[in-house]
Amino acid sequence: MHPLRLAGILLAASAAAPADEGMWLFNKPPVRRIKEAHGFEITPAWLDHLQKASVRFNNGGSGSFVSAAGLILTNHHVGAGVIQKLRVQERDLMKDGFLAKTRDEELKCPDLELNILIDIEDVTARVTDAVKEGMSAEQAAAARRAAIAEIERSSFSETGLRSDVVTLYRGALFHLHRYKRYTDVRLVFSPEKQAGFFGGDPDNFEYPRHTLDFCFFRAYEDGKPAAIGHFLTWNPKGAAEGELVFVSGHPGRTNRSLTHAQLVSLRDVSLPFSYERAARTEAMLGSWASRNRDNRRLAELSIFSFQNARKVMQANLGALLDPAFMERKARNEDRLRKAFESGHPEAAAAYDRIAAAEEESNAHRLRTEMLEEGRAFATALFPIARTLVRAADEEEKADGERLREYQAAGRVSLELQLFSDKPIFKHQEIVTLTDSLAFLCAKLGADDPLVRRIMDGKPPEKRATELVARTNLDDPEYRRELYLGGKDAVSASSDPMIVLARLVDEEARALRARQETCDEIRNQAHQAIAAARFALEGDDSYPDATFTLRLSYGLVKGYLNHGEKLPAHTTLGGLYERSEAQEATPPFDLPERWIRGRDAIDTDTPLNFVCTADITGGNSGSPVVNRAGELVGVIFDSNLDGIVHSFGYFEGNGRALAVHTAGMLEALKIVYDAGEIVEELTFSSNPE
Amino acid sequence: MHPLRLAGILLAASAAAPADEGMWLFNKPPVRRIKEAHGFEITPAWLDHLQKASVRFNNGGSGSFVSAAGLILTNHHVGAGVIQKLRVQERDLMKDGFLAKTRDEELKCPDLELNILIDIEDVTARVTDAVKEGMSAEQAAAARRAAIAEIERSSFSETGLRSDVVTLYRGALFHLHRYKRYTDVRLVFSPEKQAGFFGGDPDNFEYPRHTLDFCFFRAYEDGKPAAIGHFLTWNPKGAAEGELVFVSGHPGRTNRSLTHAQLVSLRDVSLPFSYERAARTEAMLGSWASRNRDNRRLAELSIFSFQNARKVMQANLGALLDPAFMERKARNEDRLRKAFESGHPEAAAAYDRIAAAEEESNAHRLRTEMLEEGRAFATALFPIARTLVRAADEEEKADGERLREYQAAGRVSLELQLFSDKPIFKHQEIVTLTDSLAFLCAKLGADDPLVRRIMDGKPPEKRATELVARTNLDDPEYRRELYLGGKDAVSASSDPMIVLARLVDEEARALRARQETCDEIRNQAHQAIAAARFALEGDDSYPDATFTLRLSYGLVKGYLNHGEKLPAHTTLGGLYERSEAQEATPPFDLPERWIRGRDAIDTDTPLNFVCTADITGGNSGSPVVNRAGELVGVIFDSNLDGIVHSFGYFEGNGRALAVHTAGMLEALKIVYDAGEIVEELTFSSNPE
Repeated sequence: MHPLRLAGILLAASAAAPADEGMWLFNKPPVRRIKEAHGFEITPAWLDHLQKASVRFNNGGSGSFVSAAGLILTNHHVGAGVIQKLRVQERDLMKDGFLAKTRDEELKCPDLELNILIDIEDVTARVTDAVKEGMSAEQAAAARRAAIAEIERSSFSETGLRSDVVTLYRGALFHLHRYKRYTDVRLVFSPEKQAGFFGGDPDNFEYPRHTLDFCFFRAYEDGKPAAIGHFLTWNPKGAAEGELVFVSGHPGRTNRSLTHAQLVSLRDVSLPFSYERAARTEAMLGSWASRNRDNRRLAELSIFSFQNARKVMQANLGALLDPAFMERKARNEDRLRKAFESGHPEAAAAYDRIAAAEEESNAHRLRTEMLEEGRAFATALFPIARTLVRAADEEEKADGERLREYQAAGRVSLELQLFSDKPIFKHQEIVTLTDSLAFLCAKLGADDPLVRRIMDGKPPEKRATELVARTNLDDPEYRRELYLGGKDAVSASSDPMIVLARLVDEEARALRARQETCDEIRNQAHQAIAAARFALEGDDSYPDATFTLRLSYGLVKGYLNHGEKLPAHTTLGGLYERSEAQEATPPFDLPERWIRGRDAIDTDTPLNFVCTADITGGNSGSPVVNRAGELVGVIFDSNLDGIVHSFGYFEGNGRALAVHTAGMLEALKIVYDAGEIVEELTFSSNPE
Repeated sequence: MHPLRLAGILLAASAAAPADEGMWLFNKPPVRRIKEAHGFEITPAWLDHLQKASVRFNNGGSGSFVSAAGLILTNHHVGAGVIQKLRVQERDLMKDGFLAKTRDEELKCPDLELNILIDIEDVTARVTDAVKEGMSAEQAAAARRAAIAEIERSSFSETGLRSDVVTLYRGALFHLHRYKRYTDVRLVFSPEKQAGFFGGDPDNFEYPRHTLDFCFFRAYEDGKPAAIGHFLTWNPKGAAEGELVFVSGHPGRTNRSLTHAQLVSLRDVSLPFSYERAARTEAMLGSWASRNRDNRRLAELSIFSFQNARKVMQANLGALLDPAFMERKARNEDRLRKAFESGHPEAAAAYDRIAAAEEESNAHRLRTEMLEEGRAFATALFPIARTLVRAADEEEKADGERLREYQAAGRVSLELQLFSDKPIFKHQEIVTLTDSLAFLCAKLGADDPLVRRIMDGKPPEKRATELVARTNLDDPEYRRELYLGGKDAVSASSDPMIVLARLVDEEARALRARQETCDEIRNQAHQAIAAARFALEGDDSYPDATFTLRLSYGLVKGYLNHGEKLPAHTTLGGLYERSEAQEATPPFDLPERWIRGRDAIDTDTPLNFVCTADITGGNSGSPVVNRAGELVGVIFDSNLDGIVHSFGYFEGNGRALAVHTAGMLEALKIVYDAGEIVEELTFSSNPE
């Protein structure tokens, strides 16, 4: 990240956005902008096809259909969490990779839910009408929650589709998204970790890059490969330098419309806390992993994800700690407030309301993080316990009064997670829980009354050991029994993890309610600001990312970095060179298959490429398509300059990184002998 | 660490100490105890010989003379910081190891100071008499500092010996230690890192253990090997199981006499802060090191030391977070207070005075850590700048009024450090400083007025880069010029690191003064408590460790761990087995020489052994001797159970770990072909 450049970052989406900025809604696409900037007009049919070929991975990534038989392309690192859980006769699929030679060999994934966006309905009026003049923030939050629950419930019961109301522009608009849901998803192909994660943490967010970060799943329906109407045609040549490309994916979260007060919170409170936690966990897990091979295998993916998160936070903190950026943000905000004062006094006043809500949030943030967000209980077993405890309590309330994740419309997803038979390794859970209990004691003080009750007179390791060793929640059948037993069964349970979840629930719920009241205040304030901006500037804009489908676009384009010209794409030959330059030390060692295959490979084949499309975390696995809507690559990363686009897109060295279709095809053909996939892609590409 | 056992830990040294407890003063040895427990009577001559053969490494370790020609044995990990800085024609001595075949080849070490304790004088009366009735804590602190300075100055000027007044029993006694000082120290032999650090972080603090953690230096005087009257005879057979052994070394710091309030501070404030910092730095440096081999080489030792510190803190926190331990501590303290109430009201009241001082300390601890302890400025260049700035300011004061490290008696050591030509790698300094500046912003807030001045309108990376790139303080000659130029030169300097040190000095000094006032209150309180305890319980005790020479003793003795019998010693054969069991993955890979030498080695030779002697950090490199005063091993570690001895010795599974003389000899003979050293040791052992 180059701090000097940051001062130039635009502070929020606005009418003056530069050519390739934006994560645009599919029901409000930037048709005119693209046409003016690139002379290409996207049509409703073009958009509809791309939308329905786009896949959301509910574990936090994106993907796309690439065949009529439900074949899905995404990143290896999006699939990795699932791949790590799969076992074929004790083979380590992360290490060895996987290829199903027949459909029978495709491996069913536990608790993986995929969503395809079918349609979008603006329900803003129904949501905001529920909030009446004179309601307190608590009352308003409850009314809004009830309205949203009813919209989702009735949509789900009418259509059978997953129905999510999404808050856009931080409270100005509410859209109902309806998704087709796939829960029978099977692994078809994944490369070895050495190829899929080539370069690991050291190369992460860097460019030039050389990684085979892709894999294939297949969606099934009724036990058969799903018949897919909208899938992307595989263009084996990919995109050339200078070509216009589009990215259709699910960016998770951006911070472009945050107020100055919210950015200060992020800079001084939330990010430092999250950074501390990530670094702490990374160091602790790294130490545990180094003890032997089994630990290493179990922990490597978590370690990588903490390293990844730490790098992102470091870059974001670097941006927020640039006073030039923060002062510019403050000035822009002042300018807006002044502009609002005459015609939009509500909007002018909104900034102070947000600042007050931030202060209130921050005052309780540490306890909220620890108790409600569960940072004190870093084990997969705790969320299970909490879900059981809360599901039983929420069951007794009207749907609209429940905590959101327990409402009727979300039950399918909730149960999919709850009854998943993904393996839980208790010795690893003890290690992570021990550390997080020590973190709890450090943060809230060992003499805090609730902390004392949580620790039950024991030091962290002993308490973690008894909690994990004695719980039965690692058994999905036991979970099902408790869940079906409802409030009576859960209240009577002496399972120690259930007892712990009950113990903290009163304060945790109170903390959540307090945060939701603050959210309501912020929602209302942002609604006022957005309305005023729409009135003054027009509404040719896009909202901050919300892990919903967005369209981005840009050019395939290299860049100058400290005077060095970086190419638009790298090649398979570069992969070998990078490995040699690092003396094949992990994570720069190549899999045996790649070493053997070297002579047969066309080393000029493009492997990774960069484009200027506006993306962020969650876009991993997004398809990159050309004007013809053909697949030319799969997004897998930003570079470091791209990370700070979180706070505003800036036409500089920030780039989206993708794996090139030509490189994937060459790997499948030559290295992996995956003729079946190649045929399926090729057949799909050339339908008779 | 086994939490259950902790409840049994004794809370402070007392007359009821178990047989092998204690880090005893050489001028108050536990003659009677040892005789009663083990039937062996140590004599003044025996003690005097051991004392004068013992060496303090001023970088934080211990060692011993093992030949008449100044040969010194210590741990590889004590020497590593120095070894890493040495270069012979670009060879990496950490990786390759080193053996001087002739004395001419011995490598001079930058800024390594060794001390040999010559005598001890009780100066308690002179120090405490300076503190008059009715003085405020500030006045008392100043008076005490002046008295200590005068004692040290006059001793140094009379004897030419390094003269340090040491605070014992946390303020009850003051002893003047006089040391012969060696500053021309040369590396003679060190094994490869793979052997010296075999097992690395995963095996650190574990047992059974297999490491060649030893190396040899030589003390020089007037350019020639120092002629040593007291050196230890190398016993090639080592010590047998059950044998009584002694450890003579420099334990750094224990916390056995801390009050409950002080332990709470440690648990809730200081240790969590230090843990956070260590984990953060470990993660950040690990990420940087993974980028390429050069980074790895530069950072590996720092990473290991942060890992090591983190493990120690984790174990100590585990102990303090055991409520059973803390409650027992509180009960013991109540019992003492009650006992003091009649005859020693001053002592009874002392506990509350300490608690108040802790509260005051804690209120300023974060800023003190950041600004005075320099945690905000993690670069070797900052302490240099501060030393120059402060030396110039202190020079103008009377000796007794100066900050302690700038007083006359300490100038030799100060200048040795300041003018050291140890290499400084600016690109690494930028990385560590960037991180610590971000840490500063996170901890004190980016809008703190001093933080804003420190950051000078720039984000961390940019500010760190300009500070490091533009300073000339990496040049020892430039430092010397500024130092000799005094106040005028330093005040006029525009070197950015000097400017930074000047900028923070006002607040840093104020914070230090505040902490020193708290120290004075604690000193006086502990003095009262100790006096009352001596009166009630007698003074057959030892003070908390203070990085001064202490005598420990115990038996060579294996132990039961979770039902598994762990042997008193491991063997060279076990080293190969451990490596194979871990598939020779680093840090379990063996150096080429060891693989080649396997057939020639007697695999039954003992390698590491354990004994019950009471040690802690700083004891690394301490000689282990038998009844005859012959060397049988060199201490290199505690096991995890031993770490919590910091809070009280407990006769359980805690053990001191040592490298066995037989294993070292076999390695020198067979693997390293180090006939010269073997001859020197053998000749010394069998003087004609």
